[in-house]
Amino acid sequence: MADPLILFMPSGKRGRFPEGTTVLEAARQLGVYVESVCGGRGTCGRCQIEVQEGQFAKHGITSADDHLSPFGAKEQRYAKVRDLKSGRRLSCSATILGDLVIDVPQDVAINAQVVRKDADTRVIERNPAIQMCYVEVEEPDMHKPLGDLDRLKSALAKDWGFENLLVDTYLLPRVQKVLREGQWAVTAAIHRDEESGFAHLIALYPGLKNEAYGIACDIGSTTIALHVSSLLSGRTIASSGTSNPQIRFGEDLMSRVSYVMMNPEGREAMTTAVRAAIGDLVDKACTEGGIDREDILDAVFVGNPIMHHLFLGIDPTELGGAPFALAVSGPVSVKASEIGLMLNTGARVYVLPCIAGHVGADAAAATLTEGPHRQDEMMLLVDVGTNAEIVLGNSTRVVAASSPTGPAFEGAEISCGQRAAPGAIERVRIDSETLEPRFRVIGIEPWSDDPEFGKAANGISVTGVCGSGIIEVVAEMFLAGIISEDGVIDGSLAARSPRIVENGRTFSYVLHEGSPRLTITQNDIRAIQLAKAALYAGIKLLMDKMNVDHVDRIGLAGAFGSFIDPKYAMVLGMIPDCDLDQVKAVGNAAGTGARMALLNRGYRREIERTVREIEKIETALEPKFQDHFVAAMALPNKEDPFPQLAKTVTLPERKTLAANDDGRGGGRRRREGGRRARG
Amino acid sequence: MADPLILFMPSGKRGRFPEGTTVLEAARQLGVYVESVCGGRGTCGRCQIEVQEGQFAKHGITSADDHLSPFGAKEQRYAKVRDLKSGRRLSCSATILGDLVIDVPQDVAINAQVVRKDADTRVIERNPAIQMCYVEVEEPDMHKPLGDLDRLKSALAKDWGFENLLVDTYLLPRVQKVLREGQWAVTAAIHRDEESGFAHLIALYPGLKNEAYGIACDIGSTTIALHVSSLLSGRTIASSGTSNPQIRFGEDLMSRVSYVMMNPEGREAMTTAVRAAIGDLVDKACTEGGIDREDILDAVFVGNPIMHHLFLGIDPTELGGAPFALAVSGPVSVKASEIGLMLNTGARVYVLPCIAGHVGADAAAATLTEGPHRQDEMMLLVDVGTNAEIVLGNSTRVVAASSPTGPAFEGAEISCGQRAAPGAIERVRIDSETLEPRFRVIGIEPWSDDPEFGKAANGISVTGVCGSGIIEVVAEMFLAGIISEDGVIDGSLAARSPRIVENGRTFSYVLHEGSPRLTITQNDIRAIQLAKAALYAGIKLLMDKMNVDHVDRIGLAGAFGSFIDPKYAMVLGMIPDCDLDQVKAVGNAAGTGARMALLNRGYRREIERTVREIEKIETALEPKFQDHFVAAMALPNKEDPFPQLAKTVTLPERKTLAANDDGRGGGRRRREGGRRARG
Repeated sequence: MADPLILFMPSGKRGRFPEGTTVLEAARQLGVYVESVCGGRGTCGRCQIEVQEGQFAKHGITSADDHLSPFGAKEQRYAKVRDLKSGRRLSCSATILGDLVIDVPQDVAINAQVVRKDADTRVIERNPAIQMCYVEVEEPDMHKPLGDLDRLKSALAKDWGFENLLVDTYLLPRVQKVLREGQWAVTAAIHRDEESGFAHLIALYPGLKNEAYGIACDIGSTTIALHVSSLLSGRTIASSGTSNPQIRFGEDLMSRVSYVMMNPEGREAMTTAVRAAIGDLVDKACTEGGIDREDILDAVFVGNPIMHHLFLGIDPTELGGAPFALAVSGPVSVKASEIGLMLNTGARVYVLPCIAGHVGADAAAATLTEGPHRQDEMMLLVDVGTNAEIVLGNSTRVVAASSPTGPAFEGAEISCGQRAAPGAIERVRIDSETLEPRFRVIGIEPWSDDPEFGKAANGISVTGVCGSGIIEVVAEMFLAGIISEDGVIDGSLAARSPRIVENGRTFSYVLHEGSPRLTITQNDIRAIQLAKAALYAGIKLLMDKMNVDHVDRIGLAGAFGSFIDPKYAMVLGMIPDCDLDQVKAVGNAAGTGARMALLNRGYRREIERTVREIEKIETALEPKFQDHFVAAMALPNKEDPFPQLAKTVTLPERKTLAANDDGRGGGRRRREGGRRARG
Repeated sequence: MADPLILFMPSGKRGRFPEGTTVLEAARQLGVYVESVCGGRGTCGRCQIEVQEGQFAKHGITSADDHLSPFGAKEQRYAKVRDLKSGRRLSCSATILGDLVIDVPQDVAINAQVVRKDADTRVIERNPAIQMCYVEVEEPDMHKPLGDLDRLKSALAKDWGFENLLVDTYLLPRVQKVLREGQWAVTAAIHRDEESGFAHLIALYPGLKNEAYGIACDIGSTTIALHVSSLLSGRTIASSGTSNPQIRFGEDLMSRVSYVMMNPEGREAMTTAVRAAIGDLVDKACTEGGIDREDILDAVFVGNPIMHHLFLGIDPTELGGAPFALAVSGPVSVKASEIGLMLNTGARVYVLPCIAGHVGADAAAATLTEGPHRQDEMMLLVDVGTNAEIVLGNSTRVVAASSPTGPAFEGAEISCGQRAAPGAIERVRIDSETLEPRFRVIGIEPWSDDPEFGKAANGISVTGVCGSGIIEVVAEMFLAGIISEDGVIDGSLAARSPRIVENGRTFSYVLHEGSPRLTITQNDIRAIQLAKAALYAGIKLLMDKMNVDHVDRIGLAGAFGSFIDPKYAMVLGMIPDCDLDQVKAVGNAAGTGARMALLNRGYRREIERTVREIEKIETALEPKFQDHFVAAMALPNKEDPFPQLAKTVTLPERKTLAANDDGRGGGRRRREGGRRARG
């Protein structure tokens, strides 16, 4: 008769094992990651599994109650001392007696830790780079005068299979003390570095050490976000964020590169600043989670290329001009102590690979999270900052590019623009009849046309328009017919509404009559057009490369994605036409990707492979980019229809233009009548 | 027809290669180490070889002048720019046309460096852990946005076969600058760590860097000796030595361990002291050799277990008592920067393995140098300090032990003993008729009975007796019949000579009537007997284990070996009987072993393997040790005949003792008459 068939969920891996095999051993042999710190002694409780009762038929497995060994002595002892949830078994103790479907829970919490409710709740299948290994070491023997460390290494080879283990230098003076403190029983933290194929002993604890943590950090040019997770349960223990202190050296990326070029100590100052901020975040998160930073053994970082370089202490000057040479594009593995991070002395750091000079490890992490390479649908992933990082593809092929959008979408280069902060207009609607606007302001709950608006302001005055507000006001102006598809403000409307005012040779739209008075000028519209044309042209170029004329899904990453309304982004033609239900803000996809790489080293290999395979398109070298750019100056776009968008909004009728006429010229001619009317 | 047969000397490796193969490529394929920095471009000149003309027949190879390609363009260019000795060829250029015997010279000196005449002249076949690799790197390309480091790694993989190269973190911020400085041509220093199986990029230089150095250092408890060698030519560039500054914390090893146990900061103080002294030695050697310490990329250290631990910052307390547990016995590979050594930032350190708690990396290095495991003769290797480290064996089996000799051989515990310094008696002869001594004093050339003695003294006064002097005076007293084989001073001789004086219940021998008056007391004799009995018993135990009753060769290592006369050591029965021609001082065998491990990583593997295979004998656990010890109290030994020694000196006739009588008791009884005669 065949050996019993064992199926592990959720991985779906299956195999046949002789009766009497422990479930843990079966998992090991199939490559199913089941945590175990104590090495099968039944003391750590990490290897809990559940038997899926009554669901066997659907997996083609028949089963009975007695297909798993009865509750054994080790399990009884563990359940007495710690809490073992009903239905849970210790896989190191439970042995196979017949066919089984085994559920490997991804949330084996052993310690009563505070778990953040607001952290990303995505459950990540675990296989961390750090493994906690309890061993009992032979005592010194004058007949066999092997060193204490050498006997520890032997035990780790014998019990855990680590041959040729390398040992962090700082541990050499500590080994003897820890072994004696633990009375020859210790827990070794082993870092399995697949890059080198070898394992390092990075930390050593007396007795059973049944917890270890890691951090995942997204270094944005504006904000730094950090999560602390348990490497053994996968749970997020604490999260913290702060603004990037490098802002004082330059608001956007290019001004920071300039600062480095102008100041001999600039690079070091910015490196020190960002590392210190990360150190503070770690402290804050440790306090919040009630853990010791000494217990943080692993860390994963992502960031755009310039943040990546500055964090690693690399001069980013080369990234400031063509050919935008990265110092290093592959993954970077270092010790935390080597880059001045105060975690456990042996803690390791992994930095995701960068895709190209303008498409960083953050884009790689977002790719890992959203997984265009794992799906059949054609997915577009966009993260907009000073440069837009664009990834497009599916399981057969992925392409990436960056496009120089400039900072207009962040409110810079806009006359009334400001950063997202209390007092900034973030939402706008314009009545297409009266041309009157109403808006919502950060920090004030009601809309501006709500009678409660003034009362709710609570001292907040309207000071400017932030990125999402700019996008909405321009899009609403277009939908209300105030601007043409060529982006020209229709001066003739001044006759209909006092909101349209002359401003030298062009017209402006008065969004708010206050102090300051907030107007949207023709130049503001041009700035948005230039930015969105760059973004769209980049996307279009990638669509050309992929030979597709539409995308199935769009993910909008980062702050940009979280705050703008996809509908307005599409009205402006920032992104290509797509079913609006399939356009989603993917939040901090980069941060989530960092967490995935932290909790599962398989994801590190996946993104390294993916990044190597991604085709990198340099927009500056593509002649068609310029054509796409010119066509994309129009709203939503001169050439592309937006059929999906048209189901949601009524786009102004498209006018036919002369073939060699650009949008702007045409607009100027068409509006001349209006302007003269006011002249 | 068969391909040409190529034989490389001195390794003797041979193989057949198609015509047109370069000699360098043939060497590579056979695993013959031929240095090449430029990778076959004919610019570094490191790959020089010679064709052994006229000696072919003896290797069974027929040859003609035209079996090697004529002098090529690369060789002509090199010979024009640099000096290429007549008969030398560049193996990267010369191709095989027929059978050849190739000589790989071990002294390819490219730079006109000062070479120390007094350094150990042993030629060590080279295969250093550090390889200098010149590469030309692709320039950045926006179409293929790989990082600069990634392109460098590709070039090193392509040209030099280093896949999955790991990179020292400190280089990340430097890569771009060096690549641009070298205009995309750089020399990479690669450390090939066989322990991990992987290679690390540890340093990077613009253009062709055609030199690299390493240091080999023996940390003795009394003196530290250091050599700087070229890793590319193998030549010793400079040597320096100094006394171990730890002496101020304790003269001998055990007092240093006590100091650590008594002083909380003791370990750190001693670690700092020894590392600082090594740093000073490096500076001194660099100045002497005219080299930059930045160019030192590798370092090998040896020392006894306590020196080993203190150097690595490990508390040696456990070595102070049973079970004498080493923190680490295996080889230690660290970065120089991790242990506070200021060499090149990426420099590596290799510390040889320790054999046992009292048999250190110095004994391992001496074993590597003298190679008992490489020969058929039974070889005994002895290094005497406070503990004697003893290695015995041949190619089939090697055993090792330490024996607690105490410091008597170093002049401590001896009434007139002192360290070897000007004023110390180091050689002694006693006239067996008159019982008058004559001696030689350190710092004074003539013997004491030479009329010139007083004049030559030049202000040096006779202050004591150093280790070698003690051994000689006791041995001469025995040969002159002043002491019996049981070590008792024959008081009856006081009648014959005023040199024999009563001293309480025993007698003394007056070696020098001066200020101070130097006498050899009965207690001094006892101290030497105890020390030599311990040493001999340890050796005997190992001979038992090996089941041999004689040894073919004896190597006396360290200062002990250099200063004592083997004949007197044998007269005292410190070492077993052996043909005196086969007893040799092996000088600083430990330092030479360190140099071997520096210049050839194959030797690292050899000594690691040998140390693992050495059978370690703990004398304290062996019941027979005590028996051997008791028998060895007698001079030369109660049980063993010394037939070889008897060919050189006339040993006093051996008296028959009662079977259950120990040497001391017997001596006392036998001398009673004499003592009573004077009473």
